[in-house]
Amino acid sequence: MSIPSPVYDPPFNITRASHVVLTVRDLAASRRFYTDVIGLAVSAEEGDALYLRGLEEACHHSLVLKRTSGQPICERVGFRVFTEDDLVKAHAYYAAAGLRATFVDVPHQGRTLHVTDPFGTPLEFCASMEVMPRLLTQFHLHKGGRAHRLDHFQILLPDVQGACAFYMKQGFRLSEYVVTEHAETIVAAFLQRKGNPHDLVLFNQAGPRIHHFAFTTVDAHTLLHVCDVAGNLGYGLAVERGPGRHGPGHAQYVYFRDPDGHRIELFTTHYQIMDIENAPVRWDPNHPLRKQIWGLPAQRAWVEEGTCFPGVDVRPPLVQEPVVTLEKFLAARG
Amino acid sequence: MSIPSPVYDPPFNITRASHVVLTVRDLAASRRFYTDVIGLAVSAEEGDALYLRGLEEACHHSLVLKRTSGQPICERVGFRVFTEDDLVKAHAYYAAAGLRATFVDVPHQGRTLHVTDPFGTPLEFCASMEVMPRLLTQFHLHKGGRAHRLDHFQILLPDVQGACAFYMKQGFRLSEYVVTEHAETIVAAFLQRKGNPHDLVLFNQAGPRIHHFAFTTVDAHTLLHVCDVAGNLGYGLAVERGPGRHGPGHAQYVYFRDPDGHRIELFTTHYQIMDIENAPVRWDPNHPLRKQIWGLPAQRAWVEEGTCFPGVDVRPPLVQEPVVTLEKFLAARG
Amino acid sequence: MSIPSPVYDPPFNITRASHVVLTVRDLAASRRFYTDVIGLAVSAEEGDALYLRGLEEACHHSLVLKRTSGQPICERVGFRVFTEDDLVKAHAYYAAAGLRATFVDVPHQGRTLHVTDPFGTPLEFCASMEVMPRLLTQFHLHKGGRAHRLDHFQILLPDVQGACAFYMKQGFRLSEYVVTEHAETIVAAFLQRKGNPHDLVLFNQAGPRIHHFAFTTVDAHTLLHVCDVAGNLGYGLAVERGPGRHGPGHAQYVYFRDPDGHRIELFTTHYQIMDIENAPVRWDPNHPLRKQIWGLPAQRAWVEEGTCFPGVDVRPPLVQEPVVTLEKFLAARG
Amino acid sequence: MSIPSPVYDPPFNITRASHVVLTVRDLAASRRFYTDVIGLAVSAEEGDALYLRGLEEACHHSLVLKRTSGQPICERVGFRVFTEDDLVKAHAYYAAAGLRATFVDVPHQGRTLHVTDPFGTPLEFCASMEVMPRLLTQFHLHKGGRAHRLDHFQILLPDVQGACAFYMKQGFRLSEYVVTEHAETIVAAFLQRKGNPHDLVLFNQAGPRIHHFAFTTVDAHTLLHVCDVAGNLGYGLAVERGPGRHGPGHAQYVYFRDPDGHRIELFTTHYQIMDIENAPVRWDPNHPLRKQIWGLPAQRAWVEEGTCFPGVDVRPPLVQEPVVTLEKFLAARG
Repeated sequence: MSIPSPVYDPPFNITRASHVVLTVRDLAASRRFYTDVIGLAVSAEEGDALYLRGLEEACHHSLVLKRTSGQPICERVGFRVFTEDDLVKAHAYYAAAGLRATFVDVPHQGRTLHVTDPFGTPLEFCASMEVMPRLLTQFHLHKGGRAHRLDHFQILLPDVQGACAFYMKQGFRLSEYVVTEHAETIVAAFLQRKGNPHDLVLFNQAGPRIHHFAFTTVDAHTLLHVCDVAGNLGYGLAVERGPGRHGPGHAQYVYFRDPDGHRIELFTTHYQIMDIENAPVRWDPNHPLRKQIWGLPAQRAWVEEGTCFPGVDVRPPLVQEPVVTLEKFLAARG
Repeated sequence: MSIPSPVYDPPFNITRASHVVLTVRDLAASRRFYTDVIGLAVSAEEGDALYLRGLEEACHHSLVLKRTSGQPICERVGFRVFTEDDLVKAHAYYAAAGLRATFVDVPHQGRTLHVTDPFGTPLEFCASMEVMPRLLTQFHLHKGGRAHRLDHFQILLPDVQGACAFYMKQGFRLSEYVVTEHAETIVAAFLQRKGNPHDLVLFNQAGPRIHHFAFTTVDAHTLLHVCDVAGNLGYGLAVERGPGRHGPGHAQYVYFRDPDGHRIELFTTHYQIMDIENAPVRWDPNHPLRKQIWGLPAQRAWVEEGTCFPGVDVRPPLVQEPVVTLEKFLAARG
Repeated sequence: MSIPSPVYDPPFNITRASHVVLTVRDLAASRRFYTDVIGLAVSAEEGDALYLRGLEEACHHSLVLKRTSGQPICERVGFRVFTEDDLVKAHAYYAAAGLRATFVDVPHQGRTLHVTDPFGTPLEFCASMEVMPRLLTQFHLHKGGRAHRLDHFQILLPDVQGACAFYMKQGFRLSEYVVTEHAETIVAAFLQRKGNPHDLVLFNQAGPRIHHFAFTTVDAHTLLHVCDVAGNLGYGLAVERGPGRHGPGHAQYVYFRDPDGHRIELFTTHYQIMDIENAPVRWDPNHPLRKQIWGLPAQRAWVEEGTCFPGVDVRPPLVQEPVVTLEKFLAARG
Repeated sequence: MSIPSPVYDPPFNITRASHVVLTVRDLAASRRFYTDVIGLAVSAEEGDALYLRGLEEACHHSLVLKRTSGQPICERVGFRVFTEDDLVKAHAYYAAAGLRATFVDVPHQGRTLHVTDPFGTPLEFCASMEVMPRLLTQFHLHKGGRAHRLDHFQILLPDVQGACAFYMKQGFRLSEYVVTEHAETIVAAFLQRKGNPHDLVLFNQAGPRIHHFAFTTVDAHTLLHVCDVAGNLGYGLAVERGPGRHGPGHAQYVYFRDPDGHRIELFTTHYQIMDIENAPVRWDPNHPLRKQIWGLPAQRAWVEEGTCFPGVDVRPPLVQEPVVTLEKFLAARG
């Protein structure tokens, strides 16, 4: 196995993970969860769509919720490119790669490019959005988890090694990765554009599906406070995992399932990774911190469940990587 | 069922939970765990005994560890009485109750009274200890969990209702309690002398055994930090439960198993309960917060395991109260 | 100089500092400050009186604000006694001491005793109050400083040594004290009944006046958060001192002036002091931590200003103790 | 007045503020301060030079201290460029601008370019450094202020408007700025390359001098903890300002003076600023939050004092902007 080579002079300039578009069954229920528990701010509610942003964000939205009467799905994950010119270059790049790339109109966004990656993940790119006031210092209005900004999303898919190579060619840098036992292939990849460990995380599972999207928050105090608030407001069992500390990436996290089962992470403790000499960190599967630094393993639902993309077949992973779930851990203990 | 009546003019003045005496197999291993992870200070190491205190404590010890070559046990739990005269009154009180009460010499403690309660728990009372410097403001020396002071211990025993009545006659006030489904009897009791919810907690299980002893710490930040430190120092799986938030008592907690399996809690968020009008809080077993405010239930080991007292038979509980363990919860979910 | 002797068997049982009664010019303005910034809960607003309590408190009120068209003052500071019988004993005790002690009716309180101490401070004692729900775990409703419970008040008066002796005869224990340069007399005394460093603090200044009353809060995070909220809501200059760390008492504090100039402290980091062997801590005036552990000294307004009691002459202190104010400190630096 | 235009396609790619080189009189005293109080890690001590890095940093150093027997100064401030090729372009760019640009050898750094900007600030650029282990998750070793990474430095100089234009031509983006009362000119500029508010801050004062350099830390808890630790270790008066909250930039800060008088900031609460639509935030001098959100103004020493660069004349500012210092504020209050 070799890890793909970094591309320091990318064909167009993706700057960061930008937004996620989900469908939900009850917009009012979702609004309550995402504002009172997670602490996002509402930018607009228009017809069947609710636009939310983090307290720190000046962009119009980082989370879009649309009402559905069907199965809740993830319509699309969005990235920012720096300039309109980068959009044009992106269009040319994907077209040259044989992918269907289409310019579309999306409310509150600048010109927007739709592409589906070769693995089935529906992507969206734009260079700008409408500007909203940052609420960073409106401390008296902060609620619950005080979600500050969208940081990354994690995609489950059958071919991490392949997807990793695809995204690295576009300038994503690999910050950390996990290999199989005999290092035949990559089973988890942390990819970044914005100078901290991840904009896009890829994990080996049946997919493509989105595992979670993650917002930063301020501190450990808030990670526990959001759980207390969740409990008070009837979402005690929505706390699916944590608070805890990851091994790879080092994030201090808590995971929630929203009323439709979509998974959101709040976390702290990023590190900066910008310099050219920073080599990717490799995690062997037997590393004691491969999963987390302390506490019990994640339950099976956290490991295996995710949200589907529309009209995309979910296929099994190319390699089977055994994961010690909470269920297996407790059973082994007897 | 009726709850026992409070006694406002007790026969002698117990002021607080004071200390715990445990046996351990490897004193050096225990010292490392309790100082580097939990953050206790060493007052003395003498022969086969290690004396530890919290960062805030001026008393010589709140935790005594003695080397054993056998099964690790809890030798005794200790309470403070206010004056030497209270000791004399305690001796008379227990003798009149038909319990064997003996004055003994214990290093670093004033005159000490040994009594075994009618349920088999070995108790120890003293009015004073040698004085050590408080390390409360030696911030640069604080480590790991920054354990500040012993607050309470929890005893598992078959007859909570009976034990509750026994201790309330000596002036313990009932702050919170849990009843069986049809309220026939008390299955958990929080008893206090010092003006916050608990010095002595009684839970319905096979016993008598000590479930855990609890030290206060400073804040939510520290509850997560101690877990990180535990993970770094090889105690990641010693984090048995939490961080989380209890329903009854409201403590924000994390539980550890020490190298011998003894259980220690670090927690924050007490409340003050001193006024005569404060009635005990009753928890019905089906109350949604009966167990905790958010997150997954405790694993079976946390619910059922405890440390034995020397030479005391462990008997099954008088009533069977079904508890939803993590194992049952996950199995029910499928 | 000698410090007064402790009385372990007091004539009646005062349990804790209980409440403060202030007058204010604009009840709505005060309500906004105390609820949105400090984070107290409203128990009742009746006519010209507003009753507030901390988030943790089950008692009806710990702060009473009454509308005045005159100069804002402190009407009275209140203590709890344990039983009604203690009230009767208190009445007898003060009458025997030649002080006028009167039973009065006070809304929401049990039978209440009014006494003025020999130094002019108007006191109030009751054994019980109406019970309100504790809001300790209503985390989603907590605001600003999340004030949890009234802990103590500080009185400025000309004869600290005398007042210290007066209160210790009633069972107050001296936890810490400051002496003049040649130790002729006590110029600051921390007195307690409830087992932590202070219910009543006495400082050498013109008086009697109340310097501040203090509520506990949860952690360092909240001490800074309340300042941010204060700034947002237009009270940025109401942050009079801190956040900082006291030397004596060790509290981590922040002080505010309310809209009428009354001073309130929010603080963390108490220690428990209950055992009979705990001797009072003596601070010499030249001790480097006599004032605070780090940062700049308090401004003159904090040192010298306070709230008057009704109809009581303010007299100068018996001893002059030079205090290094912020103004003097900066002037000396040039 | 107009603000300089942003340059989205810069002549070479500066990625971030990288390091600061100071001289100090006692290397051992500085080492103690920066490791035990601030919490930096030592990468190397070689001869008369001490190399330090933040807990999160993989680069060899972000702070270099060199022993001097003379007046302590700041030798140079350093930036990173992305590739070696950017170094070559930078050399050409500065030479074309008529500035002397020299390649030099600097220990532990890749090829390094020395340039002095037109205002007298000695700069240093490199594309890479030796790699050291990140200590981010070595939680048990973290001390004091837990400084995580160098974020920015602030330069005092007479012509902020001119310097702002100079740096923006090289791709720095203006995130926030302060103008004079009638908006004739910029008197403070926050310039950034790495996607948060500042790599380089320029303030109107006699200069060029360095006002401070700033490291990120984890949370509010740590900002107060570092002060407590400073107090314990004899640096209580080294806490020059804060903890507090800035208006512009929003940082939650504390400032220290090191044993030689160099100023270091620890702070939290950045925001991300990457998108092309983000216009610079303008602060008018009379904005109530122009200085800070709450508390007292900064003392004069904080406003006026700074560290000189070697052999550069300090000249007075082109415009006089009156600043309300703590001294003036207290005097005005009487």
